[in-house]
Amino acid sequence: MEQQLIIGILAGSLTAIATTPQIVKVIRTKKVDQVSPLMFVILAAGNATWCWYGILLKDWPIIITNAFSLTMDLAMLVLKAIYHKK
Amino acid sequence: MEQQLIIGILAGSLTAIATTPQIVKVIRTKKVDQVSPLMFVILAAGNATWCWYGILLKDWPIIITNAFSLTMDLAMLVLKAIYHKK
Repeated sequence: MEQQLIIGILAGSLTAIATTPQIVKVIRTKKVDQVSPLMFVILAAGNATWCWYGILLKDWPIIITNAFSLTMDLAMLVLKAIYHKK
Repeated sequence: MEQQLIIGILAGSLTAIATTPQIVKVIRTKKVDQVSPLMFVILAAGNATWCWYGILLKDWPIIITNAFSLTMDLAMLVLKAIYHKK
């Protein structure tokens, strides 16, 4: 059980922080045209559904890490909207 | 239990297919410079760890969808290597 919790937290932390380098890159370059907005829309929907799954399982690693991922996906979409070439 | 399985498959399917629009965009435009390779390296590590978590839980939705995600992350990294400006 303890190993399971550690692996879950590690897995969730990795997928949760994955969007961060893309966000940093966009903030630094102010360029988003090659980034697919649909990718982050689907990711956001997926992470929201994983939260729901975690709630059903009462599984905290799934809930917390996916809630963080969802926040980052939405941040990326806001950046896409801000820096998108008019 | 049945609802849990459906939500798990839905969540996993969404996060699994999320990379696809980015891959299609890259293949179509042959441009990858604004895409963060680190994002897909961390995603690949995360999805591989989620597979491990799924194996520990004997949870098939987690295993199968993350194995697919891992494949797509690696495909994106191959495209990044191919189309990266020399």
